Amino acid sequence: MMTTKMDSCNVLQAARLLKEQDRFLLLTHKNPDGDTLCSAAALCHALRRAGKTAFLYRNEQITEKYLPYVSTYLEETGFVPEYIIAVDLATEQLFPNGFSGKVDFCVDHHPTNSFYAGKTLACPDRSSCGEIVMALIEKLCGNLSKEEADLLYIAVSTDTGCFQYANTNAKTFSAASHLLAHGADNAAANLVFFRQVSRARVELEGAIYSGMTFHRGNAVVVATVTLEMMRRCGATEDDCDDLASLTGRVRGCKVGITIRELESGESKISVRTSKDVSSIEICSVFGGGGHEMAAGCTISAGPARSKELLLAVVDEVMK
Amino acid sequence: MMTTKMDSCNVLQAARLLKEQDRFLLLTHKNPDGDTLCSAAALCHALRRAGKTAFLYRNEQITEKYLPYVSTYLEETGFVPEYIIAVDLATEQLFPNGFSGKVDFCVDHHPTNSFYAGKTLACPDRSSCGEIVMALIEKLCGNLSKEEADLLYIAVSTDTGCFQYANTNAKTFSAASHLLAHGADNAAANLVFFRQVSRARVELEGAIYSGMTFHRGNAVVVATVTLEMMRRCGATEDDCDDLASLTGRVRGCKVGITIRELESGESKISVRTSKDVSSIEICSVFGGGGHEMAAGCTISAGPARSKELLLAVVDEVMK
Repeated sequence: MMTTKMDSCNVLQAARLLKEQDRFLLLTHKNPDGDTLCSAAALCHALRRAGKTAFLYRNEQITEKYLPYVSTYLEETGFVPEYIIAVDLATEQLFPNGFSGKVDFCVDHHPTNSFYAGKTLACPDRSSCGEIVMALIEKLCGNLSKEEADLLYIAVSTDTGCFQYANTNAKTFSAASHLLAHGADNAAANLVFFRQVSRARVELEGAIYSGMTFHRGNAVVVATVTLEMMRRCGATEDDCDDLASLTGRVRGCKVGITIRELESGESKISVRTSKDVSSIEICSVFGGGGHEMAAGCTISAGPARSKELLLAVVDEVMK
Repeated sequence: MMTTKMDSCNVLQAARLLKEQDRFLLLTHKNPDGDTLCSAAALCHALRRAGKTAFLYRNEQITEKYLPYVSTYLEETGFVPEYIIAVDLATEQLFPNGFSGKVDFCVDHHPTNSFYAGKTLACPDRSSCGEIVMALIEKLCGNLSKEEADLLYIAVSTDTGCFQYANTNAKTFSAASHLLAHGADNAAANLVFFRQVSRARVELEGAIYSGMTFHRGNAVVVATVTLEMMRRCGATEDDCDDLASLTGRVRGCKVGITIRELESGESKISVRTSKDVSSIEICSVFGGGGHEMAAGCTISAGPARSKELLLAVVDEVMK
């Protein structure tokens, strides 16, 4: 089926559409984050309030942190859906297997949304999908429940780094205000999603900060995460969220490089740069890619050798 | 002069009051933070827009971080004020010297405000003074300028830990939305006040996290900051903001103890506890005090011995 932007709809049209349907299955994207999971769970809760049968697709990649918030919505075995909704899913590449071409309705905030669904409610000026789902629920049910407000606060806050990322705008704050006015417990959510981390993570950060090296007057900061550090701190993949952002905490840093030693003997490299240096230019030397200010690559060498190679490239790029 | 809550006024009355006066001096509190400084600077800017002469009191304790935002408003030598305004000042104990009994008008959000001023605009339901000043400026000038919105964003965000502290409520978010709609550059402010720290701070955190010890299954976390660590990281007092909060990042921590070695050979202790343990109970053993969830004391011993003594007391308290 050819899909175009003609298939887009507004909030009111979307609510009318959903009211006519039943037996919903809500899809979340690969490596699900707070926005896709909690927006989908909130919409699922609202659909049930509206008398519908609705479940979340059993995404195998849901992490322990989010499971308590979404587990009551997960698909029962044997459920046969009649209407498929994709939440926060920009393209079919981010789908779980088997759903390409089958999505009836999509709600999303990504400017890159490819309008793969039958109907799409797209609001690319929104910093999170949660804000759009908030408006949709209010049209669908006439109001917003505390449960939905709690879930949507997690969606909005996790997609904006608790309102600290540059994507946070006036509409984000306005939505957050509305969610709190409807009972969202921001203090409880902040504790779980922003304040507290595992002991292993704290110890790993200790090792990373202690081992950071600084070059060109702190303009280049290199963090290394070795297998030995991971073992010593008892850290697992769950403790490694967003490690690539740590170098950027150093005032004056223009190029932040994070080197992770892999079991294979290779090193996984994440590069973060300020506007005046290209991350792609650095990573493309090693066959990697990404965005201007955030890119990655893999180097077939241990951390020490990888660092030498990277610093040599950075020296060239920053000449 | 006897002052009572009869001396309170609302935003409209306050704006009328200020319109009738001129030659304003705005006071900020001891150890000035973002809320007192940037709220005062924003109000000063608005008074000037309203055709008034207005300056900020030259608070000697303004730190380097805030100086660029307030320097253009600081009192010129020889300025003789006719009307004194206190901004974010709960009690006369927090005054600069020489102003007791002389404050004509106070704008504040602290529930503990003692109504020492001739007239007081008090809104204890506000998480920051900046939110009240925002409303006051709009009544005073009929609008809010980008400069004022930028300053007030710093006031609101620093007093709420970038909207992460539990004092953040629906009104806070609503004010933040309004400030961004009036041009506040939240991304630039967040970079300075929340994202970036000195290299010395990052290295000091590395040393602190690496040296943390964990007791009673992570329920008790002890951080130590020695003079040697400070020297090795090139850290100064400027790099030590809120170090006592680091222990609380560890999931499961009920008692966080931070021990700072002093040049005197003593140790300065900060204790942070969850609701079910009393910080005061721990610190009072050593002659200290504070609040139920945050207290402090000084122990006449080095860090290692202080830690032994503290852990023994914690063992008693948590029995």
